[in-house]
Amino acid sequence: GLSSHHVFAQHPNLDITSDDVTSMRAAVESNGLFQQAYLAQKAMLDEQILLPVDVPVPKDGGGGYTHERHKKNYQLMYDAGIVYQITQDKRYANYVRDMLLEYAQLYPTLPPHPKRKIGKQNPGKLFWQSLNEAVWLVYTSQAYDLILPSLSAGEKTTIEEGLFRPIAKFLSVDSPETFNKVHNHGTWTTAAVGMTGYVLGELEWVEQALYGLDKSGKGGFLKQLDELFSPQGYYNEGPYYQRYALMPFVVFAKAIQTNQPERKIFEYRDGIVLKAIDTTIQLSYNKLFFPINDAIKSKGIDTIELVNGVAVAYGLTNDAGLLDIAKQQNQILLTGDGLKVAQALDNKLTQPYQFKSVAFGDGNDGKQGALVIMRQNVNGEQAVLFKPAAQGLGHGHFDKLTWQLYDRGEEIVSDYGAARFLNVEAKFGGRYLPENKSWAKQTVAHNTVVVDETSHFNANVKKGNANHPELLFFDKNDHVVMSSAKIDTAYKGVSLKRTMALINLPTKNNEAPELSFVVDVFDVQSKNKHQYDLPVHYKGHLISTNFELDTQLTNLPVLGKDNGYQHLWLKAQAKPKAGLSQITWLNDNGRFYTSSSIMDGDTSIIFSQIGANDPLFNLRNENAFINRKANAKNHTFVSLIEPHGEYNPSKEFTLEAVSKVNKLSHQKIENIDVIEITLTNNKRYILAYNAQQNIKDKHVNRFSFNGSTYQFDGRFKLFDI
Amino acid sequence: GLSSHHVFAQHPNLDITSDDVTSMRAAVESNGLFQQAYLAQKAMLDEQILLPVDVPVPKDGGGGYTHERHKKNYQLMYDAGIVYQITQDKRYANYVRDMLLEYAQLYPTLPPHPKRKIGKQNPGKLFWQSLNEAVWLVYTSQAYDLILPSLSAGEKTTIEEGLFRPIAKFLSVDSPETFNKVHNHGTWTTAAVGMTGYVLGELEWVEQALYGLDKSGKGGFLKQLDELFSPQGYYNEGPYYQRYALMPFVVFAKAIQTNQPERKIFEYRDGIVLKAIDTTIQLSYNKLFFPINDAIKSKGIDTIELVNGVAVAYGLTNDAGLLDIAKQQNQILLTGDGLKVAQALDNKLTQPYQFKSVAFGDGNDGKQGALVIMRQNVNGEQAVLFKPAAQGLGHGHFDKLTWQLYDRGEEIVSDYGAARFLNVEAKFGGRYLPENKSWAKQTVAHNTVVVDETSHFNANVKKGNANHPELLFFDKNDHVVMSSAKIDTAYKGVSLKRTMALINLPTKNNEAPELSFVVDVFDVQSKNKHQYDLPVHYKGHLISTNFELDTQLTNLPVLGKDNGYQHLWLKAQAKPKAGLSQITWLNDNGRFYTSSSIMDGDTSIIFSQIGANDPLFNLRNENAFINRKANAKNHTFVSLIEPHGEYNPSKEFTLEAVSKVNKLSHQKIENIDVIEITLTNNKRYILAYNAQQNIKDKHVNRFSFNGSTYQFDGRFKLFDI
Ligand SMILES: [Zn+2]
Ligand SMILES: [Zn+2]
Repeated sequence: GLSSHHVFAQHPNLDITSDDVTSMRAAVESNGLFQQAYLAQKAMLDEQILLPVDVPVPKDGGGGYTHERHKKNYQLMYDAGIVYQITQDKRYANYVRDMLLEYAQLYPTLPPHPKRKIGKQNPGKLFWQSLNEAVWLVYTSQAYDLILPSLSAGEKTTIEEGLFRPIAKFLSVDSPETFNKVHNHGTWTTAAVGMTGYVLGELEWVEQALYGLDKSGKGGFLKQLDELFSPQGYYNEGPYYQRYALMPFVVFAKAIQTNQPERKIFEYRDGIVLKAIDTTIQLSYNKLFFPINDAIKSKGIDTIELVNGVAVAYGLTNDAGLLDIAKQQNQILLTGDGLKVAQALDNKLTQPYQFKSVAFGDGNDGKQGALVIMRQNVNGEQAVLFKPAAQGLGHGHFDKLTWQLYDRGEEIVSDYGAARFLNVEAKFGGRYLPENKSWAKQTVAHNTVVVDETSHFNANVKKGNANHPELLFFDKNDHVVMSSAKIDTAYKGVSLKRTMALINLPTKNNEAPELSFVVDVFDVQSKNKHQYDLPVHYKGHLISTNFELDTQLTNLPVLGKDNGYQHLWLKAQAKPKAGLSQITWLNDNGRFYTSSSIMDGDTSIIFSQIGANDPLFNLRNENAFINRKANAKNHTFVSLIEPHGEYNPSKEFTLEAVSKVNKLSHQKIENIDVIEITLTNNKRYILAYNAQQNIKDKHVNRFSFNGSTYQFDGRFKLFDI
Repeated sequence: GLSSHHVFAQHPNLDITSDDVTSMRAAVESNGLFQQAYLAQKAMLDEQILLPVDVPVPKDGGGGYTHERHKKNYQLMYDAGIVYQITQDKRYANYVRDMLLEYAQLYPTLPPHPKRKIGKQNPGKLFWQSLNEAVWLVYTSQAYDLILPSLSAGEKTTIEEGLFRPIAKFLSVDSPETFNKVHNHGTWTTAAVGMTGYVLGELEWVEQALYGLDKSGKGGFLKQLDELFSPQGYYNEGPYYQRYALMPFVVFAKAIQTNQPERKIFEYRDGIVLKAIDTTIQLSYNKLFFPINDAIKSKGIDTIELVNGVAVAYGLTNDAGLLDIAKQQNQILLTGDGLKVAQALDNKLTQPYQFKSVAFGDGNDGKQGALVIMRQNVNGEQAVLFKPAAQGLGHGHFDKLTWQLYDRGEEIVSDYGAARFLNVEAKFGGRYLPENKSWAKQTVAHNTVVVDETSHFNANVKKGNANHPELLFFDKNDHVVMSSAKIDTAYKGVSLKRTMALINLPTKNNEAPELSFVVDVFDVQSKNKHQYDLPVHYKGHLISTNFELDTQLTNLPVLGKDNGYQHLWLKAQAKPKAGLSQITWLNDNGRFYTSSSIMDGDTSIIFSQIGANDPLFNLRNENAFINRKANAKNHTFVSLIEPHGEYNPSKEFTLEAVSKVNKLSHQKIENIDVIEITLTNNKRYILAYNAQQNIKDKHVNRFSFNGSTYQFDGRFKLFDI
């Protein structure tokens, strides 16, 4: 049975406790980050509470006045609740009380929202969808908890009977599908109802929130924790939605911890909540989340969801690396955990956060493909994202085995992200643009193989969700991070297998490495002939090619008809001779990047720009080059991407604008792929790997190459020959 | 006659004196910016002096090995000279001595440089052009001055006879055209010879440097100070070259001041050297120089020429605003002035530097047009550059009356700058690209009127230099900065007159202004019919238009055949109805910008992108819209550009994405232009101005408008009606 002795503790007792309040009251009296944050917040609030309370009858959909006003109201109530607790000034409590009383009067009169979308989203009453209603309640239940000590018994009754009981009922027993759904909307809903249950002392609601309406455990918060994250804490829809999903998990878990510590919620599933927070951080580069799937590219670690996540995690773990992230977030929460972070920052306890090379298994079992992050530091921080991940539901992109490169703070090989101008009415109402489907989700919008100008799974989400790539291996040593994966279901009768490595070349006397490469081997096999396209969406200005370009001078035709190709202008094409083709571009970070590829003399290269069939200028005009192998059954694309040199027009120097790669070869020797890299100084390196399925950890590989014999254990080795 | 008693003072005695050295020796012993700079410099130098001295026989042109080596050598000698003076460690002096002895052996054997360009540039011996030779000598004469105390009489004789006397002779009496030329190359040459004269005690060389070889004053440094700057210190070629030109003026003036203070060189021409330094700062926005004419856009105030200028100016004036600039430059010079700056920064004496609205008269008399800068701060720093300036010689662009807008740190309405990848061999050897002439210099590459798709002066430099616009007025008050100018010579039989204002609307109770506009009235008059194009090169993503676009969906044609038009893709066109046309774009700074224009129903708008006829991808693919009035004799383009709102996808809000302008009208009532702006809240404003030539300061203007009578003094008034 549940022990209930914590539940009726004095208020507040959700994410902020009365012990927290004691510390916070002391902290605002002395100089420091917490005091600064408090004074700024209070100043803003002091202006707001002079304005009349406005609780409009719900009318508008997302972005409209009543929608935005109700959102603003929960934030104001939450903020005023905190300032009340800190100042003990009843003006703030009364402000919340007055607003709650208006809601208590309004709420029982409300029908389902007039702007609801029947059959699409569950409707709310204050908002067009119940998701917003749940978010509103997560905050408002906390605001109520914060001012409870100031209320009379009569006020309590009015507010609870008029507002909290009806809304909790509406979100739970009246909306069983959403409440029981193992989905992010369900998490907000169970969190809202569970937290309200703690405040009102309705432990039954908490039980339902945790185990589903029928308390069977088939739905509810714990099931969501079981299903929605991989064992490492990766969320199936990718970083952008992981960041968003984090909020209700962390907020509700914290409330459970406060009220029922015996549930050990932060230890649940081997600490899945803390893992999810940490994984969210790992899924960023230079403060921004990797923009896979439907992602707004400017979203980063300073998002409120992760500010809250980091504060709660720091409160639990005192991990000094989290302070590094908190510092970059530059936002102090007015909570007990926020205070701990602020004081630790004041005391300069920060340690560098450790970004790691890691393969995040996908799916609730962690075995439905993986999202692979490779990192190293060679004259700047580098990251490769390699994506043999699952589809990731409706916001997923058809981009199996795609990749991205980051270096010196910038995107080098990029993903378009979502086609959307968030909340900009003139751009399709601020929603996902039509081009999100026609371009951003399509395979050609990514850095992976397109067969016959069609997208993976024929752009069928259901088919995508039912199939996933298989991670063959992920491993690393001092000079190489490497991973390989395959998928046979993206196209009928075509098998795709890609092996990627981020390497740095060994130096004499263990000096810091100077040369780094991304190695990319993409093997396509089929019994029938197809056209294989492998795009590289590069960021920067094209500097040079070592082959002649046939550039469109006075007329740009469109590249194709459908599946994203209709959005590409054909700017130039080329058919390089057999041997090494090289394409160099200059990124805004001042560094040059060269893609060196092995050419067979029958592969063409197309230079494209996004922008065709774009009547309203919705798309960004970004550039790509596409390796095209037509009329082939099997083909292996082999490329090296090499950062080099520096363009510094401000200081008027340019260094090493030319690639150091002189030759590149690839051979398959039985099960071993052998890549030889020859530099312009005649130094040679061999990267050998075994990407067979299911080999043993201690597997010994041997091969002969150019008359010598080589040997390595495990998956790969970089030979300095 | 000249007093020579300073000249034989103890060495060093050029830009660094022995008094400076005394202070510098003390400063490196205590913590601070100077010590940090010194330790970093010394550490770099300590590595370099371990390497063998390399004084190669000159062979390569710009960018080649011997060219770069001789450049590196002068820097090493200069740095080693300073470190010798600070440390008194003879190793550093010996390093300079050994290098100088090698030069003394080599120099007499040298013929004119093998890579010289006959008839184009004056040749050097160490370098392909004498300009580099002069720069080399400016630094090397200082290095010699710094180590002189360490040398034996024999060493002195060897070095002076073998190197300094021959090179000074070569640059002066053997190259009279360059030496006497009133041009930046002449400044480097006279500075080099004059400084060498001070070190060797050859006051005759100094006299020649100051007054020309024949000492008539028709050439030489003082004549250059008279001719190359306007009275306000504006350099005819624009900020990019002003920055470059500054160096020899400041370095030589400082040496003159040290050796012959009685010349009062810094008071010469009402303090022209200091004015030139300050004007260079004023010609920047957010640390970068306004990129008019042939300019590399990433050049900014942290350039070494301005670091030196600011240090010398601070040494003379102790102006605390200069410290604001020095702080942003983030580079401390190892000189006496550098020390003063470092200590002032250590002592936090910095005051904000005052950027001003100002019209810099062009030409040596300041009456050959003007470069106008308008600034205000309305939710961020704003600047308008308006360019009724003279052609500015060979690096000038055909952009009479063009303009640019900057807001919140970014370019909003832009100038392409130069088409060049400085020192990137693959891009046309790193020189100005062919597209610099075919695109960047052409009128259509700018935000000014193009008549019949031809450029100003038919792109003839000589004709451009012989004609200049006329500034009609420049004036400002709290709400308006305004300027008007005209030119009748850019096109035969067409008169161009433009009036621009940067305004902010008055607020109640003198609250901070919230709304700002750029007002642009471009009046074109001719007796014959022409096509008038007025482009706006905007930076950002097109958000919306209030008229329908006919967008090219599957095929992009080129816009024209020549004069830059051959580089423009025609992306879309429109013919808005008579009334208000509005085009909104979103800049990377997160703000929206709307251009509202008065349409007559017979003007079309063309949306273009740079990139046609660009076989090697040399051009940046930037966007413009072009107002086109065809088949007209007279036409007035009237536009408002309005910054508004905020796009913040990171925090998930979008504010005021829609313009607040509802109506716009323009009438000419006798000599007064009357512009009425009506906002969406029905507030109305009238901006009235009188741009007639030659009116009196106290001129009283009266006009009737919509039944009311209005009156104002001087040039303009903004009426809040
Ligand atoms: Zn994508
Ligand atoms: Zn220009």
